[in-house]
Amino acid sequence: MKIASLSDYLLLRINRPAAKAAPGKAKAGSAPESGAAKPAPRTPVNRQIYQLIREAILAHTLPAGMQLPSSRDLALELGSSRNTVTYAYEQLLAEGYLESRPGAGTFVADTAPDQIPEAVERPEPLTDPSGKSELSARGAMLTRQAGVGERQWGAFMPGVPDVTCVPYKIWGRLQNKHWRRSNADLLTYGPGAGYAGLREQIAEYLRVARSVNCTPSQVLITTGIHQSLDIVVKLLGEHGDSAWVEDPCYWGTRSVLNSLGIQSVPIAVDQEGMRMRLANLRRPPRFICTTPSHQYPLGMVMSLSRRRMLLEYAATHKVWIIEDDYDSEFRYGGRPLASLQGMDTQDRVLYMGTFSKIMFPGLRIGFLVVPESLARAFSTGIAELYRNGQVFLQATLADFMAEGHFASHIRKMRVLYAERLQLLQQSINRHFGEKMTITGGEAGLHLVLGLPQECDDVLICEQALAAGIVVRPLSRYYMHARGARRGLLLGYASVPNDEIARAFDKLAAVIKPHLA
Amino acid sequence: MKIASLSDYLLLRINRPAAKAAPGKAKAGSAPESGAAKPAPRTPVNRQIYQLIREAILAHTLPAGMQLPSSRDLALELGSSRNTVTYAYEQLLAEGYLESRPGAGTFVADTAPDQIPEAVERPEPLTDPSGKSELSARGAMLTRQAGVGERQWGAFMPGVPDVTCVPYKIWGRLQNKHWRRSNADLLTYGPGAGYAGLREQIAEYLRVARSVNCTPSQVLITTGIHQSLDIVVKLLGEHGDSAWVEDPCYWGTRSVLNSLGIQSVPIAVDQEGMRMRLANLRRPPRFICTTPSHQYPLGMVMSLSRRRMLLEYAATHKVWIIEDDYDSEFRYGGRPLASLQGMDTQDRVLYMGTFSKIMFPGLRIGFLVVPESLARAFSTGIAELYRNGQVFLQATLADFMAEGHFASHIRKMRVLYAERLQLLQQSINRHFGEKMTITGGEAGLHLVLGLPQECDDVLICEQALAAGIVVRPLSRYYMHARGARRGLLLGYASVPNDEIARAFDKLAAVIKPHLA
Repeated sequence: MKIASLSDYLLLRINRPAAKAAPGKAKAGSAPESGAAKPAPRTPVNRQIYQLIREAILAHTLPAGMQLPSSRDLALELGSSRNTVTYAYEQLLAEGYLESRPGAGTFVADTAPDQIPEAVERPEPLTDPSGKSELSARGAMLTRQAGVGERQWGAFMPGVPDVTCVPYKIWGRLQNKHWRRSNADLLTYGPGAGYAGLREQIAEYLRVARSVNCTPSQVLITTGIHQSLDIVVKLLGEHGDSAWVEDPCYWGTRSVLNSLGIQSVPIAVDQEGMRMRLANLRRPPRFICTTPSHQYPLGMVMSLSRRRMLLEYAATHKVWIIEDDYDSEFRYGGRPLASLQGMDTQDRVLYMGTFSKIMFPGLRIGFLVVPESLARAFSTGIAELYRNGQVFLQATLADFMAEGHFASHIRKMRVLYAERLQLLQQSINRHFGEKMTITGGEAGLHLVLGLPQECDDVLICEQALAAGIVVRPLSRYYMHARGARRGLLLGYASVPNDEIARAFDKLAAVIKPHLA
Repeated sequence: MKIASLSDYLLLRINRPAAKAAPGKAKAGSAPESGAAKPAPRTPVNRQIYQLIREAILAHTLPAGMQLPSSRDLALELGSSRNTVTYAYEQLLAEGYLESRPGAGTFVADTAPDQIPEAVERPEPLTDPSGKSELSARGAMLTRQAGVGERQWGAFMPGVPDVTCVPYKIWGRLQNKHWRRSNADLLTYGPGAGYAGLREQIAEYLRVARSVNCTPSQVLITTGIHQSLDIVVKLLGEHGDSAWVEDPCYWGTRSVLNSLGIQSVPIAVDQEGMRMRLANLRRPPRFICTTPSHQYPLGMVMSLSRRRMLLEYAATHKVWIIEDDYDSEFRYGGRPLASLQGMDTQDRVLYMGTFSKIMFPGLRIGFLVVPESLARAFSTGIAELYRNGQVFLQATLADFMAEGHFASHIRKMRVLYAERLQLLQQSINRHFGEKMTITGGEAGLHLVLGLPQECDDVLICEQALAAGIVVRPLSRYYMHARGARRGLLLGYASVPNDEIARAFDKLAAVIKPHLA
């Protein structure tokens, strides 16, 4: 490549702002020769020259040892200023693509890769046989079985509170207060256990509202149920351990466990909660994951005798009970029930909760209550593995609780959600009479509309989504499709009162042909 | 227990607000009989009665089948209102501790645990031999080898930018704009890949500033380097795989790998970066973790020939290169260098970055650039495993970048940090002349002050902390203490100009006795 051809090469490829090219990354095939892609038009010309020469060196179009034209000559050929070319040359010199020989000029450096010695012992890495995916086995399983939905908002997305009801003014005021002070402790990495003021508020709240037996030192702030479960498993479990999970259960629980090499053992639920078989009891797992206050997604409350049996079993066999108490603030047919943790005298329960359902999911603040003896290890583990931050949001939430806004927000939302639940139940009755069973309508943010076993609830959900309605198929919450009950999870909490009937009309129109 | 003794039992334990008891959780030993603890004094009396009766039932002090006094009689005995007692009874009925027999009265329910069948196959769960810790093996290793420091702020904490320089007014204005609109999409769970507007801004920034070759669809928002590494390993690696890590390296990298069952293979670094031995090359790992633009913590730049060798090796053996480009915006001795990702034509590089060093660590926003073919799987995996949120912060950051504040903040901070670096170097020279080697002073937020090999850098750091100075020992960044170089990591970015000399005086006073 001579001087003229270098400038030709560059002239062909430089995107001047005037020339209107498609924005974004240019397609590789659009360059007339070699593999060099056209730089994006918004890139300054000096950057473009740098990029193009660099690519030509990497592609050996400009071979090692070749002399480059002087910056003045090249600038003339390109019709650019000399500074433009100098910038590109200096960057390339700094990065080692070019070398300057004093008195001689500028040359393409020898950047051939270090020699790689021969010989490899290990067989080809795992890939799927089709060669299409390069995911690991657990990665492939995770993405194939993913339970997370495409849409996170809209009637009747389950598990989502009405985020438009958050008292924005109050929250904004508290947030700005901390923000204005620009306190370094609130803006740098957080302590592993989280902001002390928030831990105190949570401990107080849990003692009173959920009969959780804890001091602030046992409360650790996390980003939510997923992170809480991740740290519990990493600190207390080994790859290859097993965990009992309720069947059906929250998809997130199973996915986090799988991703950490924990085998999920499904335990059926009846009206009293988890129902262990003899074969289960003979093989104590490392963990028991349970939602005793409000089974997810079916909604039953675990009976006292089951609770006591679980606690006794866990104490005898040194099993960890992971209690997920995700939404028991919202109970419409009576008072919230006490936590399992509060009945535990043997320190076997790890209690998890979240502010996603009471405040708003995007806040990403949850908590984990651990036995006193483990609090320090958990604090270290959280700092080491996640390096959490967002202490300014934690401080805002602590103020929000301390000033009483949290309690009154719960009271307000409980009334609102009870109305919405009733509206939804009326809509269901209007369309289907008493034919359809409704479960889980005493508490929480969703109910389950039972479908006949011959219905394909996954297909109904797909058709509903096409009609603009977000619902989730009950069968997908079971470990195996075979034997799974069919039904739809309908979240009513986030749907404005006056939209519920209309949205359900649409859904009913999707469901009815399946009942024929 | 008769009526009189039930009311005695309660009267002895109820904490009335007037009686000044110690706040917080009462000690178990303070109750005169049985295991029941005194409820906290701030707990309403009706809650206390509920708790005390519940505990008595669980302790069998109130046996199954026993009749309770009527709420009126008990209220009289306690000198409380009848509503107070009714509340407690109703809650206990709701939770199944009591049962009401119509026409007969209220009785303690039979809540004996379900019978647990005999027989367990598995041996005792793992615990450490002392019986003190119940952590798993990986949990014990993680907390024992934790690299995270107790303090996250103060001279000379490495890796922390000056968070007090964030343009608060601008940021606050942008944040409030989104906050006021209370857009549900910004407050609920986020899409797996993050906020689209931010992904566009990051792609544009990386193309121009770091020569990263990507479209917005390849950019995924995470909460930082730790989460980025976690998802890469979970989707592309199996338990038992190995990863090459630079030795020394960032402690967080090693801890995240360990927690996921990935074996770290240390690779020494020289002036050209990672220096693989023949024995290493013969056994391709699953991952290569590297900091080519600015080796952490020593600061060298990987040479071009090493880069090309790594890329060629990775392509041949289907190894994933994880490029951690954590702080290369701050380069004082020249321009920032191009990323390794930008040289990769075989889609083997996963590029990670963070806003912790440019904006502030508490923001917890980072990003991951993956090959186009993997983008969808990563988006699903992130949503499924972490259910990230905080989209309102992502939207704020996107605006901050789009309006140009991000670029000007980097320029401003680069000038400021260069001053601080110079002030620190002057202080070092003033105390130690040219005797001490300084490395890594061309870029980033910290430098490494080399110490003679006979110095105990861990001890020096402990003594410095006692004197109010936060520094980290270089030897701790090595995989094995044997052969590790001794030195101190000094972060200068977060220390106000006029405090640097004074803080270093204190540190020098700690160091000097060790040099004698």
